[in-house]
Amino acid sequence: MISVEEATRLVLGTVRPVPTETIALTAATGRVVQAPLYADRDFPPFDRVAMDGIALAYGAVVAGQTDFPIEATQLAGAPPQPLHNPRAAVEIMTGAMLPPGADTVVRYEDIIFHEEAGQRIARVQVPPPAAGHNVHRQAADRQQGDLLLPIGTRLGPAEIAVAATVGAAVVVVARALRVAVVSTGDELVELDQAPLPYQIRRSNAYMVQAALQETGAVGEIFHFNDDQDALRQGLPPLLADFDALVLSGGVSKGQADFLPGVLRELGVEQLFHEVQQRPGKPFWFGQQAGGAVVFALPGNPVSTFVNFYQYVRPWLRQCQQPQATPPQPMALLAATFTFKPRMTHFLPVRLEASPYGHLLAHPQPAGGSGDLASLLQCDGFLRLPAQQEYFPAGDAFPLVRFRDGH
Amino acid sequence: MISVEEATRLVLGTVRPVPTETIALTAATGRVVQAPLYADRDFPPFDRVAMDGIALAYGAVVAGQTDFPIEATQLAGAPPQPLHNPRAAVEIMTGAMLPPGADTVVRYEDIIFHEEAGQRIARVQVPPPAAGHNVHRQAADRQQGDLLLPIGTRLGPAEIAVAATVGAAVVVVARALRVAVVSTGDELVELDQAPLPYQIRRSNAYMVQAALQETGAVGEIFHFNDDQDALRQGLPPLLADFDALVLSGGVSKGQADFLPGVLRELGVEQLFHEVQQRPGKPFWFGQQAGGAVVFALPGNPVSTFVNFYQYVRPWLRQCQQPQATPPQPMALLAATFTFKPRMTHFLPVRLEASPYGHLLAHPQPAGGSGDLASLLQCDGFLRLPAQQEYFPAGDAFPLVRFRDGH
Repeated sequence: MISVEEATRLVLGTVRPVPTETIALTAATGRVVQAPLYADRDFPPFDRVAMDGIALAYGAVVAGQTDFPIEATQLAGAPPQPLHNPRAAVEIMTGAMLPPGADTVVRYEDIIFHEEAGQRIARVQVPPPAAGHNVHRQAADRQQGDLLLPIGTRLGPAEIAVAATVGAAVVVVARALRVAVVSTGDELVELDQAPLPYQIRRSNAYMVQAALQETGAVGEIFHFNDDQDALRQGLPPLLADFDALVLSGGVSKGQADFLPGVLRELGVEQLFHEVQQRPGKPFWFGQQAGGAVVFALPGNPVSTFVNFYQYVRPWLRQCQQPQATPPQPMALLAATFTFKPRMTHFLPVRLEASPYGHLLAHPQPAGGSGDLASLLQCDGFLRLPAQQEYFPAGDAFPLVRFRDGH
Repeated sequence: MISVEEATRLVLGTVRPVPTETIALTAATGRVVQAPLYADRDFPPFDRVAMDGIALAYGAVVAGQTDFPIEATQLAGAPPQPLHNPRAAVEIMTGAMLPPGADTVVRYEDIIFHEEAGQRIARVQVPPPAAGHNVHRQAADRQQGDLLLPIGTRLGPAEIAVAATVGAAVVVVARALRVAVVSTGDELVELDQAPLPYQIRRSNAYMVQAALQETGAVGEIFHFNDDQDALRQGLPPLLADFDALVLSGGVSKGQADFLPGVLRELGVEQLFHEVQQRPGKPFWFGQQAGGAVVFALPGNPVSTFVNFYQYVRPWLRQCQQPQATPPQPMALLAATFTFKPRMTHFLPVRLEASPYGHLLAHPQPAGGSGDLASLLQCDGFLRLPAQQEYFPAGDAFPLVRFRDGH
């Protein structure tokens, strides 16, 4: 039986590049770019006025001048009006191009207007501290040709805005991963059916589908009974059509646990079966040469949940962003906990943000790996290492988070 | 000019309930339930076998018996086989109903099988420590009729699984908020157009639309030039049709900043204009009686960004979940920082998870509120209070996060 660390390494060793597709920027939130985006112009593209006020030549201020006749008015988006007289000023709005001949902007708050013989005059109350004040200089932030969004960048709102600025109406992105979500088990009925006393409704498949969606992948649900022939016939099309299969149930020691055998028969190479962890130990993982990866997760809902977030989500993310090594979030155990078996323990926790910038993890031990409802109170799992038995309050442990905190 | 705290209070004072809609559970990830979900059966609904092995009567173990003839085999999902002989056992699989007459399960790992005169016999190697071992008792987790998902619960993967378990093929949820995203400014051209030297492409509207999508709202983009008549004619249909308007630009002191005047003309009550904060000070906020809420954000991209995450996102979330008071995440300033103006400063930061369970915030000061590209390196803003000038490394401050860490 292998360790969680080794299992994670083997899972991530099967990460493969995803084909690209070209889509509209407005449909690309959360997607990962596969063609780099460069600055088509400087950022800003011109000396950009940063405050509403007047544009003038700083030399006049240095010479002690305080009153500036207004030569012209310049709105944002209008062609620039040159400052003809270096002792005058152009009234100017945020976002406008700085008039040729001017180098500094004094904001409305720091001037008073008056009129003399029909001429509008601005009197500077607070002289600007330096030339260039309130001017956002051309190329101050980025230069034309600079790499803005390298391959592997996830398109959040900031990246979408940058892509819009350089005119990327369409973007080349990795296509979303397609995952077949397969539940197995004769005891399961559809969610709109009334179960017999010894039956239950399917829930894992819906859980996995929702978790895939939150990760940016697309899950399609299938079900097979505990029947070897049904599996032998039903699985090959899924192995051919999907990037990955996430199965739940049928991988333990039971008489109807046919999956490992059938998967091997179908040419799916087993990379491991069983991991030193609780819950989630009977996890089977394999890969078909040139084909899909198979996560065959144990069927108890808490086990399915733990294994999805420990193994499946990182695999999905790395297929999209192979270069990214996201930092491991940590949280402080809020109460001392003991776990004797020499296995990695995924302890369900409720998270609390402390006023001191810590993330506190309050243990919420489940009533066993079948206790689906216990997850409602939890935000994630602390991954308590196998080599330790006693976990003192205040120590920090890796956090596998499934619920957002912000 | 009001404080950030007062502005936040006024914004959240306009939170209104959202109409409900009934949708398929498979389309409901991330939505908020508006009709509570109860347990239709106990959790688990029967005494559920938790390990593959044999079911027996614990009394026989207490009496010192180690060899148990196998009476029958019981798979998950099959009608239960009673244990007729209290000194025998039923071979049984995880997920099956415990046979009447049995009370304990011994897992395969703790037994050895042999055969005597054609009768299969299980020899218990490790006696179970108590009656009920490896049995997940009926109603151990929840009882029939228990409230599982109260109104206001966000449907994450765990909640989706619980809803599936109780047969909720459809769920009643708050409909997604509909937001008109309005950019203004004569200097802006469409993202597929080539800007003239003094023009730039629209980017704020795309940024806001992406941020809305990540928050679970739907944004539709509109644009108006700096033209009072265009605003007078274009805004009323948006005020009537949308839950909120998010405008960017046109709210400062410039000559073309018509928005506050036009909005008041159109019957939108101004709740405040200008907040003691940097960036983002010229924020205008109002509400039409019985109609939409209007967030008129300053047009500099970093200002738009700060105000979206400080004001718009919390408003959207509270409209969906009025009861929820999400905890305020905090982060530790990683380097000492000074900011003298008596305004709340939103300091752009890059986040790092420390090995000790802290969230460290590394300052990444922008080159002014026009420096859109600086956001690419950031994960959020530290909200540094107005009353303070000196912010020492190691102190914790509220975090407004816009990029996920897990």
